[in-house]
Amino acid sequence: MYHATRKKVHILLHPELGETKWDKTVNAFIIFLIISNVLVVILETVPSLHDKYLTFFYYFDLISVIIFTIEYVLRVWSSDHDPRYKHTFFGRIKYMFSAEGLIDLLAILPFYVHVIVGLDLRMLRILRLLRFLRLFRLTAYMKSAKMIRNVFVKRASDLKLSVVLILILIIIASSIMYFAEHTAQPTVFSSIPATLWYAIVTLTTVGFGDMIPVTIIGKVMTGVIMLSGVAIFALPAGIITAGFLEEVQHLRGKKTIKCPHCGESFHLEQQHHEH
Amino acid sequence: MYHATRKKVHILLHPELGETKWDKTVNAFIIFLIISNVLVVILETVPSLHDKYLTFFYYFDLISVIIFTIEYVLRVWSSDHDPRYKHTFFGRIKYMFSAEGLIDLLAILPFYVHVIVGLDLRMLRILRLLRFLRLFRLTAYMKSAKMIRNVFVKRASDLKLSVVLILILIIIASSIMYFAEHTAQPTVFSSIPATLWYAIVTLTTVGFGDMIPVTIIGKVMTGVIMLSGVAIFALPAGIITAGFLEEVQHLRGKKTIKCPHCGESFHLEQQHHEH
Amino acid sequence: MYHATRKKVHILLHPELGETKWDKTVNAFIIFLIISNVLVVILETVPSLHDKYLTFFYYFDLISVIIFTIEYVLRVWSSDHDPRYKHTFFGRIKYMFSAEGLIDLLAILPFYVHVIVGLDLRMLRILRLLRFLRLFRLTAYMKSAKMIRNVFVKRASDLKLSVVLILILIIIASSIMYFAEHTAQPTVFSSIPATLWYAIVTLTTVGFGDMIPVTIIGKVMTGVIMLSGVAIFALPAGIITAGFLEEVQHLRGKKTIKCPHCGESFHLEQQHHEH
Amino acid sequence: MYHATRKKVHILLHPELGETKWDKTVNAFIIFLIISNVLVVILETVPSLHDKYLTFFYYFDLISVIIFTIEYVLRVWSSDHDPRYKHTFFGRIKYMFSAEGLIDLLAILPFYVHVIVGLDLRMLRILRLLRFLRLFRLTAYMKSAKMIRNVFVKRASDLKLSVVLILILIIIASSIMYFAEHTAQPTVFSSIPATLWYAIVTLTTVGFGDMIPVTIIGKVMTGVIMLSGVAIFALPAGIITAGFLEEVQHLRGKKTIKCPHCGESFHLEQQHHEH
Repeated sequence: MYHATRKKVHILLHPELGETKWDKTVNAFIIFLIISNVLVVILETVPSLHDKYLTFFYYFDLISVIIFTIEYVLRVWSSDHDPRYKHTFFGRIKYMFSAEGLIDLLAILPFYVHVIVGLDLRMLRILRLLRFLRLFRLTAYMKSAKMIRNVFVKRASDLKLSVVLILILIIIASSIMYFAEHTAQPTVFSSIPATLWYAIVTLTTVGFGDMIPVTIIGKVMTGVIMLSGVAIFALPAGIITAGFLEEVQHLRGKKTIKCPHCGESFHLEQQHHEH
Repeated sequence: MYHATRKKVHILLHPELGETKWDKTVNAFIIFLIISNVLVVILETVPSLHDKYLTFFYYFDLISVIIFTIEYVLRVWSSDHDPRYKHTFFGRIKYMFSAEGLIDLLAILPFYVHVIVGLDLRMLRILRLLRFLRLFRLTAYMKSAKMIRNVFVKRASDLKLSVVLILILIIIASSIMYFAEHTAQPTVFSSIPATLWYAIVTLTTVGFGDMIPVTIIGKVMTGVIMLSGVAIFALPAGIITAGFLEEVQHLRGKKTIKCPHCGESFHLEQQHHEH
Repeated sequence: MYHATRKKVHILLHPELGETKWDKTVNAFIIFLIISNVLVVILETVPSLHDKYLTFFYYFDLISVIIFTIEYVLRVWSSDHDPRYKHTFFGRIKYMFSAEGLIDLLAILPFYVHVIVGLDLRMLRILRLLRFLRLFRLTAYMKSAKMIRNVFVKRASDLKLSVVLILILIIIASSIMYFAEHTAQPTVFSSIPATLWYAIVTLTTVGFGDMIPVTIIGKVMTGVIMLSGVAIFALPAGIITAGFLEEVQHLRGKKTIKCPHCGESFHLEQQHHEH
Repeated sequence: MYHATRKKVHILLHPELGETKWDKTVNAFIIFLIISNVLVVILETVPSLHDKYLTFFYYFDLISVIIFTIEYVLRVWSSDHDPRYKHTFFGRIKYMFSAEGLIDLLAILPFYVHVIVGLDLRMLRILRLLRFLRLFRLTAYMKSAKMIRNVFVKRASDLKLSVVLILILIIIASSIMYFAEHTAQPTVFSSIPATLWYAIVTLTTVGFGDMIPVTIIGKVMTGVIMLSGVAIFALPAGIITAGFLEEVQHLRGKKTIKCPHCGESFHLEQQHHEH
């Protein structure tokens, strides 16, 4: 009976496994609680709402933490039902240090640290942002999530290189711009680290306009940098698009050749030779 | 004879069906009327034009509504010629609640509500924007419309997930930026909802420059957020591009293998195994 | 001999045809003259240079026009060597009204109109911008030009639809923003045509920051518009990318199946069924 | 023994060849030295750090140059082990003028020029930026580097044409905008070269907001230019994406057909017919 209960709890808290009405209701409630927690953290920062609903926000937070704590304890307890965390003791420890387990812990931990150690209230609020991490659980329910994750995982080394190239371009751009503009605008382009802001804002094409070159050499160099930025920043987009196409074509990769002469059909299998 | 007239009217108002000169003339006139209505709504807001052509705008609107009303009534009446709306009574009701029917109704309804209930003139003007929805009918004539719609429909779940990811990134970014900048600029980054504006403007790379971080931590976090934004915002672009390629290749998907041994050729059919 | 001369002139002025050293020298000189004309038109607008090199600019322009005129006359004269403009008289007229012929005429015409009619000097300068059109001749020498042109031609109907969708989005966005912001900022968002500027600047993600919404509804609507803009503006990029892939794969489309059993190989032809 | 030492040194300085612990340690140290040199050049520009760590920065630079010099001398000496630079004397000269050799020389040369000729200190600092070029060596270790380089090399002619088109668009745009805005804002849009800055900032969608059109014609022209910019700037992105897909599909190009009739399978080879 202990095992049966544990199994039920495990399924209850893993919506992708359960299919009864009860499983779905619990799941919908947890999702609702995550979203409303995020909304409360956001709305609490509006001064007028903060003053008006102070008590409501306090009790909402308290009740949320209690429910999230119960959920967390039950998840840890029932985790050894999962084949990945089989062992009675070490399996649960392993679950606690998995990404899933840590995200859930980080959503409640700040509250207890506050109660015990007496955390600064401002710090507590910032740490409650960690509850936002649970938003990512929402994406777990979507079928496309696996596909998008695949794209990023399979193309990881290409994406890593394009990030390195972007960083090198940013560093070179800010150094050039520092030497081009420092003499003309010593307080604006005050140092290379300060000019990094200009380089990032320009290369991502955000262009706030708070730092603007005034010298001809500064403008010419910015022009060259912006145009090279178009090519370099097209890299991650190109890699992701290529990755998507790979995934889409992988899903429908099996081709069947129908031979009209003998009426039989045979498969045209695509072997992937990744080097 | 009743059926023949109804059929003629139906074809007359569905330009993709009709091919006579008369059908095309009526259709071109309706398109002209839709575009000139949009232009009038736009130009009417220019104070100098509004005062000068007040009477013209009034009669133009009146006549447009009358024509659109006649068109709408005829469309509803002749709709049971369409196999989707076969039933004499319920078919017409069904048509009225179809996207096509509702758009046409919304283009004329505000005028009648104004006449009967005495709507506020300003409200009437805003509601006349609903007439812009008829602009989408222009795209219905284009062959590519079906293809683009297909891309969005088939890739809907991927696009939905990328929208969710973008929203999560925006929420997390604005929360981080609020805590980074609130102390330094309490009136600019006044609350997380106010900082949402900063996050959207920055992540879409619009960068108006009305809210700019001044602290080092705020600038560093913005840099990190902007660079992650490059990858996340590449997702919808990548999905749409992949979808287009799928459509294009789908159209010319049938491959023929010509066997040189027996001289006959057979088709290489692609079976789509979507999981 | 007349025909031989005409043929030589024709080849001389069509660098893609000629291969002798003399052909290439003439061609390089014309390219040099086009680029230096563009540079002169640009540099002439710098006040300090304009005053200093007034005489030089005048004679440079005069000599350029004389050379371009000789080139134009010779091109028209030798055009009937081209099979497209065979007819002795009408062939030449047809050439004069071809894109190529008109661009060359527009590069010299303003000068003669100025001499004869006494064009305003400012107007003459503006019309000299037409000489920039000859820059496009530079691209004609590149092999890739045909491919890029193919992409735009084959995907024309898809691109046209995406342009229509972008225009509809711009019109709807500026109407919504006008009604959202007009009351709060009557001089900035003064009319829908004035708000078109805001919509284009925002949707192309340029974001100058000269018009910024201040109301909550205006900011929320801008957020929605910007995020839909990401999807709509990804359309032309996706169409062009898909078109490129089509072209690239078209070039290497023929697949050969090598049968190891009989040692013979046969082609796997791809039939294009464009609907 | 001389050859053995030279071979060992060669492998030691070419991390992709060596596999012993010692090789990897030396390599990691050189990478660490490159990155810390870049950091020092960047941090040195922060006034507070510059004054505080003046002596540290001086000795760090001195030691770095000494190590880089030793590395450079050893690389040149051992270069004739590389089959590309076989010849005892000319092979080494050839290596010194290879991209790799020049980058390494440029990282140390400014220091010696300064010591001998007595270079201006400011100039020395700027020249030390050349040391940043060694950052590109970091990318050499990544497998993806070859793929990304391939994309740029194979699609070079297409990319070149898109750069030419972008430059033509920028030149035409700035000329049009100069004539549209010069009269209204003679100090802002003062000449076509000055307006080039506006055209680049707008077409790359950076949009700083330091130059903004005020005339209706200027705004309309900017709108047209921005919308054409969307298509033209999609070209390099499309070319790069198509190139990536080519590379990815090239890697797994071999298809195997399994014949169910005789049980044997044979390869479906893709022949690339590039024209």
